[in-house]
Amino acid sequence: MNANEVITKVLKEKGSIKQVYWVACGGSLIDLYPAHCLLNAESAEIESGWITAAEFNLTTPKKVGKNSLVVVCSHSGNTPEAFEAAVKSTELGASVITLTDNAGSKCDDSRFITWVYPWGEGVPTKEVPIGITLMLAAELIKAQEGFPKYDVLAKAVTDIDPIIESAKVKVNNELGEKFADVCEKHDFFYILGSGPNFSQTYGFAICSLMEMQWQHCSYINSAEYFHGPFECTENGVFYFLQKGSGVNRVCDERAEAFLKTHTDAYMVLDAMEYGMDKLDASVRDFVEPALFYAMNVELRAARGKRFDHDPETRRYMGIEKY
Amino acid sequence: MNANEVITKVLKEKGSIKQVYWVACGGSLIDLYPAHCLLNAESAEIESGWITAAEFNLTTPKKVGKNSLVVVCSHSGNTPEAFEAAVKSTELGASVITLTDNAGSKCDDSRFITWVYPWGEGVPTKEVPIGITLMLAAELIKAQEGFPKYDVLAKAVTDIDPIIESAKVKVNNELGEKFADVCEKHDFFYILGSGPNFSQTYGFAICSLMEMQWQHCSYINSAEYFHGPFECTENGVFYFLQKGSGVNRVCDERAEAFLKTHTDAYMVLDAMEYGMDKLDASVRDFVEPALFYAMNVELRAARGKRFDHDPETRRYMGIEKY
Repeated sequence: MNANEVITKVLKEKGSIKQVYWVACGGSLIDLYPAHCLLNAESAEIESGWITAAEFNLTTPKKVGKNSLVVVCSHSGNTPEAFEAAVKSTELGASVITLTDNAGSKCDDSRFITWVYPWGEGVPTKEVPIGITLMLAAELIKAQEGFPKYDVLAKAVTDIDPIIESAKVKVNNELGEKFADVCEKHDFFYILGSGPNFSQTYGFAICSLMEMQWQHCSYINSAEYFHGPFECTENGVFYFLQKGSGVNRVCDERAEAFLKTHTDAYMVLDAMEYGMDKLDASVRDFVEPALFYAMNVELRAARGKRFDHDPETRRYMGIEKY
Repeated sequence: MNANEVITKVLKEKGSIKQVYWVACGGSLIDLYPAHCLLNAESAEIESGWITAAEFNLTTPKKVGKNSLVVVCSHSGNTPEAFEAAVKSTELGASVITLTDNAGSKCDDSRFITWVYPWGEGVPTKEVPIGITLMLAAELIKAQEGFPKYDVLAKAVTDIDPIIESAKVKVNNELGEKFADVCEKHDFFYILGSGPNFSQTYGFAICSLMEMQWQHCSYINSAEYFHGPFECTENGVFYFLQKGSGVNRVCDERAEAFLKTHTDAYMVLDAMEYGMDKLDASVRDFVEPALFYAMNVELRAARGKRFDHDPETRRYMGIEKY
């Protein structure tokens, strides 16, 4: 399957798409955020909404209808809220694309355009949800209104892969042990990030740390830090700053300058030192979350090793009924 | 000033509004969220975006133009990012409404429609940003496409006031001391909420607690709790649940049922026990954040009293340069 074929099929049936809704839960929702940001920044016509599935089902946007495209992602393919969102959207006349790693799951259903994606070590970014959805958004903008940055973006979605591979080694060597030290010393800490990367700020918090390491933390948009949260900053309070390489970098730089003089406990992960300078500046923001995701995975693994806590261990998810 | 006059003026000049962007920082941004939710749920035509001002300025949605309405809120009227967003939107041809408590501030400028609002004890909900923006959204939907719930919503925006007044007394009596106890016992805790109330979940965290009490905490959407964060739940880890009375209540109930059996440390603030049953169920979701805001204020005051930490005290905001 490829994004061009999917969008061509949708447009052949519908003529035009006026709204796109990105709907999922937790980690899957996080991976859809860069495509949402791309539509907002680059489309002069298409509305974009990014909504956790339960809320989408309970308070469905009134605009969902035949000229809407709803992209639903569920890794297991059986997340009840995600499946319900896909069914409901179909019933409202929308075109529905479901992304899942699990062929034969509930989300793999002939009522939807189902894209079964591979997962695991070495799978290229363009074949997993974060890359698939960027290309779906890019194809849609290109088909409906033209998208001058299309080729540059498509190249970046591929070129990010070797950057990610190098960054995994580097982040392990340079920050892995230090991050594990931080987790030993601090029962709780803050994570900062901005722009499309904020999805991975949230993801580092709720997936990598809360879910997979039972590590307490909070997540703050660097752009919001000075409008309340910074009053908590003082020596001994730890901040992990995801410093982006794109347009919103100035927000991260401003936060970093404050941290430098107001706490003795912070760590900066600067994407520019991890190869992002090699990508075209006009599209860096949209692909960079894939890099931060990969680095989050390495850091949680380093913590897991130190604490003898395998990131695959769960005590409730998929074990208890809830 | 009233919302009907403002929207009439905008529509007289522009003919129609296709997009509304709600733009501010921190506490002001929080107050614009219910109106954003109202547009999404009730308009079949108008797109709505809710964006922190720095990101709006750095990655301005491409659609911002002459048929856009940008509503900017800055309590002081001098927040640089908010003022910049208002100016930039004007330059792009959008209609701009600025809301501020400060007549004569930068946001009080003839390039914008400036609405100077009163603030403080006893000011009705309909005269402060959370109520003003709900009525701006309601007037816009009514004028452009008809809004059958208009009268019910307008009534609820007024009827919430006596509910708030009673709730302030009740929350103080029933939860004030208990909440202060929690803060003494827990250096860090989680706050849960859902739907439009999630703005006040975030607000309780970043404004009332981080900014005004230097109390560490994190905020989780109840709809996302089971997709990662709940793995952190165990005895001794405290959760404060804002249980709403509206459509998303089922998400809060699901979280509550899990907390009940998985931690010995949680507190539930159920809006239904604080008078929300008196309001029409079809619009409860949108006005309820005003109630949670008022209750957040009482709880932070109770904490402030116990810790001898006046909520008006700041160590950085408005004191240092940053």
